[in-house]
Amino acid sequence: MARDLTIAIDGMGGDFGPSVVIPGAEIAHVRHPDVRFLIFGDETEIRTELEKTPKLADASTVVHTDVSISMNDKPSQALRRGRKTSSMWRAIDSVKQGDAQAAMSAGNTGALMAMSKVILKTMPNIDRPALAALIPTMRGESVMLDCGATIGPESKQLVQFAVMGEAYAKVLFGFDKPSVGLLNIGEEEMKGTESVKAAAQMLRESNLPIHFHGFIEGDDIAKGTVDVVVTDGFTGNVAVKTAEGTARLMSSYLREGMTRSIFSKLGYLLAQTAFNMLRDRLDPNVHNGGLFMGLNGLIVKSHGGANAAGIASALDTTVDVASADLVQKIAADLAHLGDMDEEGDGEHQNKVVAT
Amino acid sequence: MARDLTIAIDGMGGDFGPSVVIPGAEIAHVRHPDVRFLIFGDETEIRTELEKTPKLADASTVVHTDVSISMNDKPSQALRRGRKTSSMWRAIDSVKQGDAQAAMSAGNTGALMAMSKVILKTMPNIDRPALAALIPTMRGESVMLDCGATIGPESKQLVQFAVMGEAYAKVLFGFDKPSVGLLNIGEEEMKGTESVKAAAQMLRESNLPIHFHGFIEGDDIAKGTVDVVVTDGFTGNVAVKTAEGTARLMSSYLREGMTRSIFSKLGYLLAQTAFNMLRDRLDPNVHNGGLFMGLNGLIVKSHGGANAAGIASALDTTVDVASADLVQKIAADLAHLGDMDEEGDGEHQNKVVAT
Repeated sequence: MARDLTIAIDGMGGDFGPSVVIPGAEIAHVRHPDVRFLIFGDETEIRTELEKTPKLADASTVVHTDVSISMNDKPSQALRRGRKTSSMWRAIDSVKQGDAQAAMSAGNTGALMAMSKVILKTMPNIDRPALAALIPTMRGESVMLDCGATIGPESKQLVQFAVMGEAYAKVLFGFDKPSVGLLNIGEEEMKGTESVKAAAQMLRESNLPIHFHGFIEGDDIAKGTVDVVVTDGFTGNVAVKTAEGTARLMSSYLREGMTRSIFSKLGYLLAQTAFNMLRDRLDPNVHNGGLFMGLNGLIVKSHGGANAAGIASALDTTVDVASADLVQKIAADLAHLGDMDEEGDGEHQNKVVAT
Repeated sequence: MARDLTIAIDGMGGDFGPSVVIPGAEIAHVRHPDVRFLIFGDETEIRTELEKTPKLADASTVVHTDVSISMNDKPSQALRRGRKTSSMWRAIDSVKQGDAQAAMSAGNTGALMAMSKVILKTMPNIDRPALAALIPTMRGESVMLDCGATIGPESKQLVQFAVMGEAYAKVLFGFDKPSVGLLNIGEEEMKGTESVKAAAQMLRESNLPIHFHGFIEGDDIAKGTVDVVVTDGFTGNVAVKTAEGTARLMSSYLREGMTRSIFSKLGYLLAQTAFNMLRDRLDPNVHNGGLFMGLNGLIVKSHGGANAAGIASALDTTVDVASADLVQKIAADLAHLGDMDEEGDGEHQNKVVAT
């Protein structure tokens, strides 16, 4: 798949900077030997890490930058301090300049989003970008968006998210017609906020070439009822983090139960492989790499606390979306949205409805 | 605790009606032998079940009703069809009449909420009721509200939820000062919807006798970071169901892993007790019983699909809140809200804010 691809990397991103980002890139390099990396950041720090991985060094170009965005910078601070000079800005800008086909950063989400919007701008027919994540389900994986890029979007924007998420699922899963569901608090048409109900109506009545499943509920996410879960950024962010927290709670219950008696300890030893499998499947590092969608360029966000394997997983995602020309595919699908534009429904937005 | 308590039961509620509700009441009767039950529903069906449980029969009064609300009735249909004649209506009404100190139903949530509002009315200083649920955490249990009674509440209503949830946690956990957190997509003050930010400001600046922790995120729910999680009904409903779905996903991963090799099968047998413990802790029947808060009377909602143990758990909750005079306690706390009433902030409600 990877033909003449260059991936830009924010070398200073994440909780650990180059000491984890570079080893992560090394793992990705082994998997994608033909991909070139364009690494932005403190040259001394990055070179120190690259010296340990000569093969990656050969596949990489390092561009020195003086400024690093901290995980605590507010988006406005980051824009002021890091404009044109930071590793994050330069990585994004290299996508705009065509030097890279996509960029990956494990840095501050708000800053990355703000800079990406300033540099790349939103695509035609898209009002606001969305953060799309891959989530584990009973049936494999689903795409969920928005996971926190935009708060309180209008129904029209939920429809845009549906179109973008569908394009992403096609590329990721290779499905012809991925199913799309709208997250709600019930499956009946009368339930939910006005914006969710209006979005469902638009998706049902439009001529968009989308397989719209209808409403789904919170427990449908893990069931894998649909391939694409569409929701607003507030709900999506809470849902993703609630799922992470629940998985951790269950692991802790399990550990506790497993050390309670000599039998369960022995059982634990015997079933070690099964437990490791469970741990690996739920490790956020395995499903790492949220994609900012709706921008004129591909930016992948890694968990800030990702380890090297996590960075490599985010780079896998970056390579996937870059080699699939995802921006062009979404642009084609978005053309269908043009004629829906007049139906703006801003006044419905988030009105209060009793169930 | 249970002194001269009578609990009303909607005998026809839930997916299975009397065949599960009555055996559930039997379990509850063994635990609370002094509590009397006032059971509404089809007398023939209920008597058939009660004949199998003579001790429960002695502690119960059966009131015949002709109409049962179906799980699929819309709230408006239920109100039309079931007004004054249904088992659900009569159970709620018995609380208003003072014949029972609280009522429990496993029936249709929307119908139960609508009828409860019509019959019991909201308390002074409360705009909308909330559904409070108990959720398992690393530290034990927390109260979470609203889990779906009200959609898109204003900041003022979130503050009311905080006061009600705090009173509930005091009664349930016996804490002097339970901590209260507001669910958001970040801990920083600048994050979130306008209504969440305004609610946080009101909780910080008010003289309410509440230990307000500040914002929490989705993963803090299972961590047990706070004793009371306050959120709007849409987000709360999605979060609770997402957690249920994730728990089921993990159990399924575990089962799959455990049957993969002879070693893991053997390990599973040895660690059976630990697994049963895990299953029991996550069984929704164990944490059954959502409380409608903010009404002039106590109504507990059981999962529709609850088994007898689940019904018994919901009845435990009902007995707990009834014997603690929870309505009076909340009313006392709500008096503090009176002077905040002028600060109404309807115009902030759910405005769109980029992070």
